[in-house]
Amino acid sequence: MTTTPAPASAGPVDAGLVEDLVAASRILAAEGVLDGYGHVSMRHPANPERYLMSRSLAPALVTADDIMELDLESNPVDGRGRTMFRERFIHGMIYRARPDVMAVVHSHSPAVIPFGITTVTLRPTFHMAGFLYQEPPVFEIRDVAGWTNMLITSNELGAALANTLGDNSVALMRGHGNVVVGPTLPITVFRAIYTEVNARLQTTAIALGGPVNYLSPEEGDIITNKEPGDVGRAWDLWKRKAMGM
Amino acid sequence: MTTTPAPASAGPVDAGLVEDLVAASRILAAEGVLDGYGHVSMRHPANPERYLMSRSLAPALVTADDIMELDLESNPVDGRGRTMFRERFIHGMIYRARPDVMAVVHSHSPAVIPFGITTVTLRPTFHMAGFLYQEPPVFEIRDVAGWTNMLITSNELGAALANTLGDNSVALMRGHGNVVVGPTLPITVFRAIYTEVNARLQTTAIALGGPVNYLSPEEGDIITNKEPGDVGRAWDLWKRKAMGM
Amino acid sequence: MTTTPAPASAGPVDAGLVEDLVAASRILAAEGVLDGYGHVSMRHPANPERYLMSRSLAPALVTADDIMELDLESNPVDGRGRTMFRERFIHGMIYRARPDVMAVVHSHSPAVIPFGITTVTLRPTFHMAGFLYQEPPVFEIRDVAGWTNMLITSNELGAALANTLGDNSVALMRGHGNVVVGPTLPITVFRAIYTEVNARLQTTAIALGGPVNYLSPEEGDIITNKEPGDVGRAWDLWKRKAMGM
Amino acid sequence: MTTTPAPASAGPVDAGLVEDLVAASRILAAEGVLDGYGHVSMRHPANPERYLMSRSLAPALVTADDIMELDLESNPVDGRGRTMFRERFIHGMIYRARPDVMAVVHSHSPAVIPFGITTVTLRPTFHMAGFLYQEPPVFEIRDVAGWTNMLITSNELGAALANTLGDNSVALMRGHGNVVVGPTLPITVFRAIYTEVNARLQTTAIALGGPVNYLSPEEGDIITNKEPGDVGRAWDLWKRKAMGM
Repeated sequence: MTTTPAPASAGPVDAGLVEDLVAASRILAAEGVLDGYGHVSMRHPANPERYLMSRSLAPALVTADDIMELDLESNPVDGRGRTMFRERFIHGMIYRARPDVMAVVHSHSPAVIPFGITTVTLRPTFHMAGFLYQEPPVFEIRDVAGWTNMLITSNELGAALANTLGDNSVALMRGHGNVVVGPTLPITVFRAIYTEVNARLQTTAIALGGPVNYLSPEEGDIITNKEPGDVGRAWDLWKRKAMGM
Repeated sequence: MTTTPAPASAGPVDAGLVEDLVAASRILAAEGVLDGYGHVSMRHPANPERYLMSRSLAPALVTADDIMELDLESNPVDGRGRTMFRERFIHGMIYRARPDVMAVVHSHSPAVIPFGITTVTLRPTFHMAGFLYQEPPVFEIRDVAGWTNMLITSNELGAALANTLGDNSVALMRGHGNVVVGPTLPITVFRAIYTEVNARLQTTAIALGGPVNYLSPEEGDIITNKEPGDVGRAWDLWKRKAMGM
Repeated sequence: MTTTPAPASAGPVDAGLVEDLVAASRILAAEGVLDGYGHVSMRHPANPERYLMSRSLAPALVTADDIMELDLESNPVDGRGRTMFRERFIHGMIYRARPDVMAVVHSHSPAVIPFGITTVTLRPTFHMAGFLYQEPPVFEIRDVAGWTNMLITSNELGAALANTLGDNSVALMRGHGNVVVGPTLPITVFRAIYTEVNARLQTTAIALGGPVNYLSPEEGDIITNKEPGDVGRAWDLWKRKAMGM
Repeated sequence: MTTTPAPASAGPVDAGLVEDLVAASRILAAEGVLDGYGHVSMRHPANPERYLMSRSLAPALVTADDIMELDLESNPVDGRGRTMFRERFIHGMIYRARPDVMAVVHSHSPAVIPFGITTVTLRPTFHMAGFLYQEPPVFEIRDVAGWTNMLITSNELGAALANTLGDNSVALMRGHGNVVVGPTLPITVFRAIYTEVNARLQTTAIALGGPVNYLSPEEGDIITNKEPGDVGRAWDLWKRKAMGM
C-alpha cells in the first residue's frame, strides 16, 4: 500500500481566529447544542482548500493546541498520529460544495432530532430563526448506503449529505442530528443555537394545536439576506460564559 | 442633512434607581426571559418625557455606565457615538401612549412565543399571573408594514405596537416576542417573569386535555388592581441572585 | 380596638430542629418546588398548639433568626413587628384539623398547578409518589368565598382548605398551588418534591397517549403506610446541596 | 437462627477501577439519571461470582471507602454493619443470569418511567441509542408478587427481573424505573444516560404527531454489536464534570 503525502499547509492562522474556533466549540457545548459529541470547523482564512477543526475530543474540552488543519478530503496536514473525528468528511465535502460557507457545525441538537424522524418540517417560528425559511431538507442515509452505523465516515457519504444540503443553511440527518452552515463562524454558531431553540418553540406551538403562523419565506429572506441582525451581541455573551471570562 | 440638537437631560438619577435598572436587566437574563437580546427600560423619575435604558448590549452584561437617557422619540440626550438598541422605539412610544407606565420590558420570552403564532390566547392559570386577565392582544407587523425584518425600528412601528397594547399589561408580537409594562420597575419585571411561567403552565394544562379552568377576569382584576401581592419578596431574591449578592 | 395578648411560648426549640426547618425551606427552593413564594412549617415539638415558621421572606433566604413561633390561629408569640406570611392560616388550621401532621408545605409547585385547573386527577406514576394513592382533592376558593385574590388570608379560609384536605397527604388549590402534609418534616419535604416530579411524569405519560397504568391504591397504601422507604438518604443529599455543605 | 459465614473476598481491586465506579455513580447523578436513589455496580474483575457496589448512600455522595464487595446472592464479604441498598438483588441476579454483563445501573430515570406505564414501546430515535433496537421489555412486579412496595427486595424478585431482562440491554420496571446493563462500566453508564435522552426525544417525536421513523433493528444491531462508537470521549467529559476535575 502506497502512502499519500500529507497535503501542504496553508500557513499559520491568527491566534484570535483559533481562539474563536475554540470558543465556538465550548459555546455549543455550554448552550446544549453539543454534548460529548459533535464538532465545529472553520475554513482556513488563507486557503479555501483547507479547513480547521479539533482532533477527536469532547467539544467542551477543546483547546487551541487541539486544532488541526485538513484538506477538503479531510486528510490532515500534520496528523502526528492524533485521532480525528470519524465524521470529519461532513465538513470537507460541504466546504467543497459550498464556496460561500466559512464554518460548519455538526450536532445531535436534541430538540431538532424529532423533526428528522417525523413528517413535520422544521420551520421558523420567530425572527431569530429566520434562516430556516428555506425549510431544511432531511438526509436519509438509507437511500445512499442502506443499513449503516448512521455515521458519515467517508467522502462519498459526506458528498451525499452536501448534496442534500444544497444551498440551505441547515440539513437534518434522519436518526442522527443535523448540519448547520454559514458565512462566518459566529453566524454559524448563532444558527446552530437558534435551530435548537426554534425546534423547541415549534414543538410547543404544535402542541397548542391549530394552525401555526410561521414566518413567511419573504420575512425569512429579509432577515437572513437583506437586513441581518446583530450576531455580535450574542456572540460576546456566549463567549464570555463559555470561556469563563 | 441638518442635525437636530440633542434633547435636554432631565437631570441626574439616583444611583440606587440606576442600580435597580441594571439589576432588572440581569434578573431577566438570569430567569430566562432574556437571552443575548431584549431590553428593559424605566421612565425618568424627574421627567415623564425621558426614559433610561442601556446602550446596545447583552442584558446580562449591563452595568450602570451603560445606562443612557432618551427622549420619547428615542433620541439620546448624550449619545457619544454609542450604539443604541435598534428597537428602542418600542419603549419611547409606549411611554408616550401610556402615562401610567413606568417601566417596559421587551423580550423573546421562549414559552410565550408559541401563543403569538397560534390561535390560543394567553390566559392566567394561577394568581401569580393574574395581570393576564385582560388576555394579551397579538401585534401583527404584517398588518402595519407588510414584509419586514420583524423589528420595531421606527417611531411609526413603535406607535403601532403601543396602539395594539392599549391598556393591557402585556402584548404579544407575532413571530417575535412580547412587551410587558407596569407601574413600577419591580412589578414590570415580576410580570415579565410570570408571563413566561404562566405560558409554560398553560401549555401543560392544554396538553393534559379537556377544558381549562382559568382565573376569571374578576379574580385577575382583584389581584392586579385591588389587592396586589408582595412583589418585593421576589424582587429581593432575584436581585441577590442576579447581582451575586 | 382591644389588643389580644400574645399567646405563651411553648419554650425554646433544639437548634438542630430549627436548622432542619431552615434547610427544608432552602431545599424546596433549590429543588424548584418554591420560588420567591411559598412556605414550610413544623409543629412545635413541645406543644401541639404551636408551630414554627419563617417571617415573610423568600424561602431561599431563610435563616434560623427568621423562625417565629405561632399559635394555631396564627398569632405570633413574639411578633416584634415582623411581617408574617399572609397565608400562614393554611398552616395553623391544618395543624388544628390534623393532629397527625407535624409539617406543612404550601407551594406554587409549577408542574402540579395544571392538575388543579383541568379535569385530570393527579395520580401516582411511580413508587416515589405512592403517597398520592388517595388522589389529591382540589380546593376551589370560589365555592367558599366567591371572587377573591385567591389567597388564604384568614382562619376561615384556612379551615375550609383543611376541610378539603381531609385525611389526604396533598390537596391542590385551583389556580394557586398546593399543600402537602406529613408525619415528619423530612417526609413532608420528600412528598412536596415528589409531588412535583410525579406531575411531570404523569403529564408525559398522558402525552404519550393511551391508558396509563398508575400505581394501584393497594400499592400506594403499602408504600405509604406499611413499608415506607428511606427518606433520610435523599434528605441528607438535599440538605448538603441546599446548605452548601 | 444460624449465621451463614460471609463469602470469601475475590481480593483487592485496582484503585483506578474503584474510582471509575465512584465516578459512574456521580456521573449518573450529575446527568440526571439518578437523584437521591438508584445505584450502579460492576462485576469484580478477578471473580465473576463477586460484584462491587456502594453501601446505601445517595449516588452523588459515594466515595471509594463506600464500595463493598458482594456475592451473587448479595451477601457482603465484609459487611461491618453497613446498611446496604435494599434492591441490591437486582444486581446479583443479573450478574448470575448474564455472564456477559460487567456492570448494572438501576435508576428512576425520569423520562423513561412513562414508557413503563403506557402502551408505547421505548424505541431508538437516533444512533446514540441504537442499543435500544431490541425494544426493552417491561417488568410487571404484580405478575410475580401481587401487591407490593414495588421494590426488588429479594433474590427471587431479582431473578424474576433478570428473567424479563433476558438478553436485552435495558428493561423497564412498571411504576418504578429501569435497569441497564453492558459489557463495560463506561458503556453501561453511556446506555443509562442515552436511554434517558432517547426517552425525551421519543416523547417529543410522538407529540409532533404522525408516524415516527425509528432506527431499524438492522441499524441498531450494527451500532451496538458490529461498529460500536467511541464511548470514551463522552466518559472522559462526564468524569471530569462529575469529579470536579
